Amino acid sequence: MSKQELPIIDAGVDVSGPACCAPLVCEPLSDSEAVELAPLFKAIADPVRLRLLSLIACHEGGEACVCDLTGAFDLTPPTISHHLKVLRQAGLIDSERRGTWVYYWINPGVLARMSALIGPASAALAGTA
Amino acid sequence: MSKQELPIIDAGVDVSGPACCAPLVCEPLSDSEAVELAPLFKAIADPVRLRLLSLIACHEGGEACVCDLTGAFDLTPPTISHHLKVLRQAGLIDSERRGTWVYYWINPGVLARMSALIGPASAALAGTA
Repeated sequence: MSKQELPIIDAGVDVSGPACCAPLVCEPLSDSEAVELAPLFKAIADPVRLRLLSLIACHEGGEACVCDLTGAFDLTPPTISHHLKVLRQAGLIDSERRGTWVYYWINPGVLARMSALIGPASAALAGTA
Repeated sequence: MSKQELPIIDAGVDVSGPACCAPLVCEPLSDSEAVELAPLFKAIADPVRLRLLSLIACHEGGEACVCDLTGAFDLTPPTISHHLKVLRQAGLIDSERRGTWVYYWINPGVLARMSALIGPASAALAGTA
């Protein structure tokens, strides 16, 4: 099953309603949903990858070439490339070669799935705390 | 530096404004922020822990004892306890012993920090896609 075929979890944040409307709060994740979501969190469970994601998202036009990213780290280009590959394989970023450089941008759909899991639960818990 | 002393990243979601107002989108994470956030994502980068978090949040009253959780998994109680310990050590859940059982509930502040990182970026990217 490709990532594109996965159902998007309802991203609606309605903190005015009962807490049970938020996905994490009263709709326990199924085993298969958890198995599909965990690798996304694993991919960003690393300081370098979190910063890469942040730098790409922040770069002019929402995309960055590896030449824009290496200067922010005290790491070798192959190490940066490894981390970019992990993010790409998880589906968090996409890339395209243009001439000498490969350009990267964030895949908003995948980020939305992660946000749909955490965001409503966080909002509901804040509203009921 | 304790988790309590960390500044909360602005959780404001304003998709009507320029994409640069969302934390992940135009405010690249600092190295120290990334180092502090990565372990939170690592703690939930596991299907069992994602489901535990979901089951706890969904349980009546927002808290659950380990006796409420073991039935959902084909795992031994010590394995469940190990995963609960990882979540607790990351600060995602808190716990308290009452008589025979230990009860667990979600720490909304920590979830809010994760949501503040992903949510606004997701919303801004969706708005600019």
